[in-house]
Amino acid sequence: MRLFVAGDIIGKPGRRALRYMLKQYRQVVDLVIVNVENAAGGFGITKKVYEELKSMGVDLMTSGNHIWDNKEVFGFIDEVDDLLRPANYPDGVPGRGYGIFEKSGVKFVLINLMGRSLLDSNLDNPFKTFDRIYQEVSKETNIILVDFHAETTSEKWAFGIYADGRASLVYGTHTHVPTADQIVLKHGTGYITDVGMSGCWYSAIGMKPKEAIERFLTGIPQKYQVEEQEDVVFNGILVEIDPFTGKTTAIERLQRYIKREELLGVL
Amino acid sequence: MRLFVAGDIIGKPGRRALRYMLKQYRQVVDLVIVNVENAAGGFGITKKVYEELKSMGVDLMTSGNHIWDNKEVFGFIDEVDDLLRPANYPDGVPGRGYGIFEKSGVKFVLINLMGRSLLDSNLDNPFKTFDRIYQEVSKETNIILVDFHAETTSEKWAFGIYADGRASLVYGTHTHVPTADQIVLKHGTGYITDVGMSGCWYSAIGMKPKEAIERFLTGIPQKYQVEEQEDVVFNGILVEIDPFTGKTTAIERLQRYIKREELLGVL
Amino acid sequence: MRLFVAGDIIGKPGRRALRYMLKQYRQVVDLVIVNVENAAGGFGITKKVYEELKSMGVDLMTSGNHIWDNKEVFGFIDEVDDLLRPANYPDGVPGRGYGIFEKSGVKFVLINLMGRSLLDSNLDNPFKTFDRIYQEVSKETNIILVDFHAETTSEKWAFGIYADGRASLVYGTHTHVPTADQIVLKHGTGYITDVGMSGCWYSAIGMKPKEAIERFLTGIPQKYQVEEQEDVVFNGILVEIDPFTGKTTAIERLQRYIKREELLGVL
Amino acid sequence: MRLFVAGDIIGKPGRRALRYMLKQYRQVVDLVIVNVENAAGGFGITKKVYEELKSMGVDLMTSGNHIWDNKEVFGFIDEVDDLLRPANYPDGVPGRGYGIFEKSGVKFVLINLMGRSLLDSNLDNPFKTFDRIYQEVSKETNIILVDFHAETTSEKWAFGIYADGRASLVYGTHTHVPTADQIVLKHGTGYITDVGMSGCWYSAIGMKPKEAIERFLTGIPQKYQVEEQEDVVFNGILVEIDPFTGKTTAIERLQRYIKREELLGVL
Ligand SMILES: [Fe+2]
Ligand SMILES: [Fe+2]
Ligand SMILES: [Fe+2]
Ligand SMILES: [Fe+2]
Ligand SMILES: [Fe+2]
Ligand SMILES: [Fe+2]
Ligand SMILES: [Fe+2]
Ligand SMILES: [Fe+2]
Repeated sequence: MRLFVAGDIIGKPGRRALRYMLKQYRQVVDLVIVNVENAAGGFGITKKVYEELKSMGVDLMTSGNHIWDNKEVFGFIDEVDDLLRPANYPDGVPGRGYGIFEKSGVKFVLINLMGRSLLDSNLDNPFKTFDRIYQEVSKETNIILVDFHAETTSEKWAFGIYADGRASLVYGTHTHVPTADQIVLKHGTGYITDVGMSGCWYSAIGMKPKEAIERFLTGIPQKYQVEEQEDVVFNGILVEIDPFTGKTTAIERLQRYIKREELLGVL
Repeated sequence: MRLFVAGDIIGKPGRRALRYMLKQYRQVVDLVIVNVENAAGGFGITKKVYEELKSMGVDLMTSGNHIWDNKEVFGFIDEVDDLLRPANYPDGVPGRGYGIFEKSGVKFVLINLMGRSLLDSNLDNPFKTFDRIYQEVSKETNIILVDFHAETTSEKWAFGIYADGRASLVYGTHTHVPTADQIVLKHGTGYITDVGMSGCWYSAIGMKPKEAIERFLTGIPQKYQVEEQEDVVFNGILVEIDPFTGKTTAIERLQRYIKREELLGVL
Repeated sequence: MRLFVAGDIIGKPGRRALRYMLKQYRQVVDLVIVNVENAAGGFGITKKVYEELKSMGVDLMTSGNHIWDNKEVFGFIDEVDDLLRPANYPDGVPGRGYGIFEKSGVKFVLINLMGRSLLDSNLDNPFKTFDRIYQEVSKETNIILVDFHAETTSEKWAFGIYADGRASLVYGTHTHVPTADQIVLKHGTGYITDVGMSGCWYSAIGMKPKEAIERFLTGIPQKYQVEEQEDVVFNGILVEIDPFTGKTTAIERLQRYIKREELLGVL
Repeated sequence: MRLFVAGDIIGKPGRRALRYMLKQYRQVVDLVIVNVENAAGGFGITKKVYEELKSMGVDLMTSGNHIWDNKEVFGFIDEVDDLLRPANYPDGVPGRGYGIFEKSGVKFVLINLMGRSLLDSNLDNPFKTFDRIYQEVSKETNIILVDFHAETTSEKWAFGIYADGRASLVYGTHTHVPTADQIVLKHGTGYITDVGMSGCWYSAIGMKPKEAIERFLTGIPQKYQVEEQEDVVFNGILVEIDPFTGKTTAIERLQRYIKREELLGVL
């Protein structure tokens, strides 16, 4: 089972990079998952952007702390079953955090979790939330995918090792920078600390650098805006999972700088 | 001018990985810089470890927040001129934060800085510290190297763009995970968010995972220890800087998994 | 039912202040509760200090994040039933977080909770932990006392209002500074943001100021030590709870500067 | 010289409480200082609210991190000389952080500083900013007043002791809860950790509790609104400073619950 996974999609440039890549990859992979917490103008997601992503061929969407930035999400998150928010948001929060899905005749689970370290102390324990969900779903399938949306590398690696042998794949999102530590762990779990964002490369992790620099120079809060150069970058991973064992057999980074001209030719 | 740069060296496994790599690279590069904040048992540096690193062929050492973990450092940091601590520690702090050096007949500057975002609010502004040092040293040479030791990807990228065209190279350390975003920025500055650590790969960023997991499961403070598997990993970068323009012409990641057998053959 | 409550007891000076006050108050109150997270040399608690506090007339002890600082606590916390650690530490953590007790023929509950905001993201939700315990114990008694150990005033006030009408008393600890906002809330819950510490007044919240100032001036980690002037201060509250309704009828601060001479006359 | 000092004024209820108190105190004190970071609807200050406060008899205004919340402030902060923002915002930030003023024939200095610990890492060191300003202004007068706007009690006490003997008065703001630790320190500096807010008492530090509780229960960001009960509370301090020595001779808290009926009679 071949997966195409993208990290945080940053606004329009991110969606353009994704569309470009899916033109090439959609037909040759079984499953496409992307993180949409910054998909609409850098802040959250709207119904329109959700539809746009579906039309490109995205199968499933995960998210993170920014999913609530655009209030429109409260209007449709409970009506769709392919858009997740972290499962360790407390009971009663709109949306769902995991699901059992089927693709190409293979049943699998996708779980979205969020780290707490230096990020948000108001969530439930992601390690224990995983245990609980695993307990429930592991009778159904041995293919278990986890988007672990977190800030610190220590929480991400600790979780990867914690889930090693139970999850098929643990990939990180949220820092917007791809890491070069993809690996198949000791007990068969594919792991990478962060898939990285898709959007404009010469930027403050996808946003215009001016405001970020201003913040660090002055301490005055700034309004951030998506960077909008015409060249874009895609960051993702390609993962091969053995449908019988549920183990990852290969995990590789997929990074592509896409020039304006290339985009024009395709989109 | 060819640079060999390593990120955080984690205890003995990190030093072994470094020694292995330097056997191969020392002769073919002009300059070797490593970050030593975790070099002695995972916490700071001792005189003995400092000597060991010098004997391997390390030219210059940088560091970060963990440099004070082993109190021995206070005894020799002011006596050596090739071991830096972040330059934006306030006036009066032992050690030095930058220096003008010469290697293979080329004069250059190495600056060590530390980010404040989600890391340490007690430091001076690293952006302005850079401005001040740049003002002073840029008459001497146009080769300016920066180890930016920081937690958040936004502060690191913002700094990279801020220094673009003034620094020859800005490389990040501290998160212990190598990032796959190495690039030559618009105005010629080589940049990477984090060089990554050297040490044991299957670990909580170099330390035994048991205690890290225990911390996340229970909230009880733990005593961390360096992971000690026999296979190790090296993470670093190779950088080519044009000595006339001071621009980076190439920056590539250098990552090597080194098996026990390979180490034995060489060390 | 009359309660004598002390906040964080800071090392020996704090214990001396407490002993002095209990000589006067032990006989005229029904119940004595103190927070012991800093009772032994400023860091945690030992068996010996535990015994010393019992011998003074302390009925029940609560604690907080520093309870694990002295590893000796792991040896006896499960053997005593009058020493609590926050109840929202995850399952499996040594010790207990609440208990049903009886004093002067009145049954009551004491719950120890810890806030997460700017303090520790690894704990369970204190609001929901309270709900769960309340559900269980409210059939037994309507006298429910809560030590809410937390950093931010917003989390403390939010919890006070959340528990208003269910808890008899919510008092804060951890910041070491007494607040002047004691009040009986709308539905009968006595509330104060922080009871304050007992120890030396002219200090960095009980510790020698030199190291704290040094930290803020240099960023270098320091080893903190309990301040040891001979004059001490006691901070606590006196609370009157109606045993029939379980409501607080009066809550007042009790603050006493105790001079060396006074201490000598009594201890 | 008699000072009337108020902490954070929270929106309209806070301004009403202040107006009520100034009707009684304006004539009998020499100087009125209030912190206005939450004066306009809970978020920053507008020109209109500034005028309203002046018309009540406020002499000088200080602020803190929330001063930039309402962008209107950028339009007039450089045109008035009686509204300060923390002096340790970096160079180039609009507004001023301290000033030499004269009242009743007495020259004095007011300095506004902001702590960094758990609050904002982008500011300059408040301890050193104080040193620098003290160096400059101490030749002009020995009456030096400091609003130290900060989160942690340790940073506030450490600063109080650091400035003891140089500042006439160090009072804290920002936590919105009054502390009961007012004291004249060893070398004559009046000190209190937090003056506390003025506004509605039964609230999450001045704001409606519903959203704060919701945040702690769900982790979903909320839009906070000023609480608007008709009863209000005033928290402030009265300080007596000897104009010859510059020492504080008395510091007392001034707290008043003001019922709707009382307000109506006066406003
Ligand atoms: Fe994101
Ligand atoms: Fe995120
Ligand atoms: Fe490190
Ligand atoms: Fe570090
Ligand atoms: Fe404490
Ligand atoms: Fe504490
Ligand atoms: Fe405020
Ligand atoms: Fe504030």
